[in-house]
Amino acid sequence: MNEPTIKEIREASERIKPFVHCTPVLTCNTLNRMCGTEIFFKCENFQKVGAFKIRGATNAVFSLEDKQASQGVATHSSGNHAAALALAASWRGIKAYVVMPENAPEVKRNAVANYGAEIIFCKPTLDAREEGLADVVDRTGATFIHPYNDYRVISGQGTAALELCEQIPDLDIVMTPVGGGGLLSGTAIAISAISPETYVIAAEPERADDAYRSFHAGRIIPSDNPDTIADGLRTSLGDLTFPIIRRYVKEIVTVNEEGIVKAMRSIWERMKIIVEPSAAVPLGALLTKPIDLSGKRIGVILSGGNVDLANLPWID
Amino acid sequence: MNEPTIKEIREASERIKPFVHCTPVLTCNTLNRMCGTEIFFKCENFQKVGAFKIRGATNAVFSLEDKQASQGVATHSSGNHAAALALAASWRGIKAYVVMPENAPEVKRNAVANYGAEIIFCKPTLDAREEGLADVVDRTGATFIHPYNDYRVISGQGTAALELCEQIPDLDIVMTPVGGGGLLSGTAIAISAISPETYVIAAEPERADDAYRSFHAGRIIPSDNPDTIADGLRTSLGDLTFPIIRRYVKEIVTVNEEGIVKAMRSIWERMKIIVEPSAAVPLGALLTKPIDLSGKRIGVILSGGNVDLANLPWID
Repeated sequence: MNEPTIKEIREASERIKPFVHCTPVLTCNTLNRMCGTEIFFKCENFQKVGAFKIRGATNAVFSLEDKQASQGVATHSSGNHAAALALAASWRGIKAYVVMPENAPEVKRNAVANYGAEIIFCKPTLDAREEGLADVVDRTGATFIHPYNDYRVISGQGTAALELCEQIPDLDIVMTPVGGGGLLSGTAIAISAISPETYVIAAEPERADDAYRSFHAGRIIPSDNPDTIADGLRTSLGDLTFPIIRRYVKEIVTVNEEGIVKAMRSIWERMKIIVEPSAAVPLGALLTKPIDLSGKRIGVILSGGNVDLANLPWID
Repeated sequence: MNEPTIKEIREASERIKPFVHCTPVLTCNTLNRMCGTEIFFKCENFQKVGAFKIRGATNAVFSLEDKQASQGVATHSSGNHAAALALAASWRGIKAYVVMPENAPEVKRNAVANYGAEIIFCKPTLDAREEGLADVVDRTGATFIHPYNDYRVISGQGTAALELCEQIPDLDIVMTPVGGGGLLSGTAIAISAISPETYVIAAEPERADDAYRSFHAGRIIPSDNPDTIADGLRTSLGDLTFPIIRRYVKEIVTVNEEGIVKAMRSIWERMKIIVEPSAAVPLGALLTKPIDLSGKRIGVILSGGNVDLANLPWID
């Protein structure tokens, strides 16, 4: 499979359109004033399963040939991708197998189980997880759908930026958070094709800054078990996402934990919408200003809104 | 001044249009399934100052003759109406005086002060509050704008339902919460004129059920210092709102505290939007089903989104 282009992203958009939401774009005068910029928030927190991940998972599931699809799909994840893959598989009427550490929080297990996926528990180590996945794929013939290091997934994630460009033309900058780089690389391909004069800038937690370091070193330098409140961004870049990011992304900036929490709370308080910590990282950059973007028109992809409401970072 | 009709609500709508948001209407499949109804949420939590109250306050402030307006406006409230009146007064370039108990939470004092109002503190009793207000009015000549028992305020609050009818025609039912009855009476006038076959149903906390009792007794029976988490609904009906409610409202239903909290949390979790407890009371009724509304198309006015994020009812 070749690296996706805008053609694959447009095809993905048509393929997933019957299933996913075209999410709204919101603005907030107070946040604009606080940042000195004009921000357009693409609300993927309102997306199905509460995150952009449904775009990539749905594109991957519906890209499969019937015969291959009939054997199901599999992944290892306890986050939004697992729930997204489970739901996408249910839409196609095929099985989803999710390998999950036995200590995964109940709320995440339930999210996946409620969409009808079969959960395979493993010890909470990387080896056990990969072994568990290999076993499932061997046993069932299911197709492994990686959370981000997969061209079908990347194309699907790029559809959010495609929509954003149609909703709000003439953006100076588009910002996304970056973890494994699926959303960022899809966004970068879309923006560079549709609006080449628009810069793509990624924001990353300072405590999980592998993308920042890799981007500047010119080679993948994974994070070693990083600890950040932005739990969706603890993953490191993959060998498929990194080259795309190197080519198309203008800059990667980092945000400390305090900045992430402050940005998250500001979105809740000012916009009255719920976003998860990972989604708040780009606003964290706009508030803490590691680079000067004042006066710019900035599209920000709010990546998701799945938060444990009983455990908020500003409450002891 | 005569009781408002749809004419006054339409005039209010034109008058406030340059200042307030036409708020979006959102839907949620999961909540529809949970309630067995089709719900259209009119998101006044996204409104200026985070609540519908800006509609009535703005209409009242901009209804004043220039001479009268120049002496300012005054109210007693520590809630959304005070912030709304302060902002509306700033838009007109006049003074706002807010009489507030000296023990009002800092967050509420700041909200009012940030909009440029002058705060007059009083002892936390009804008598002290009314005395404080009378003093201010005497001293300044400011016009008292009651939070709900005022026809200009009632007309302004009715504009939310006017918008809702344009956004979503053919509703079977429109629901609002009820405290003092400003939103409910304005809504009832609007709906009875525009869509007479649509029922208006109010939802009230069981622990502050003066509207329910008054409605069924045919006379105003105020609540005596009621205690409910829905702090915006602790007020009792006024002599201007009650007759309108008696005439145009089909039913008033009550919801217990557990039902209110459950509804609030469901909106946060499922819709990824922030609403205050008062705004969740109608959904509380749809979830706990004191009357059977299954299969109906129901408009629900989500009245506001001002919550202390450090103090949530589901966290000990």
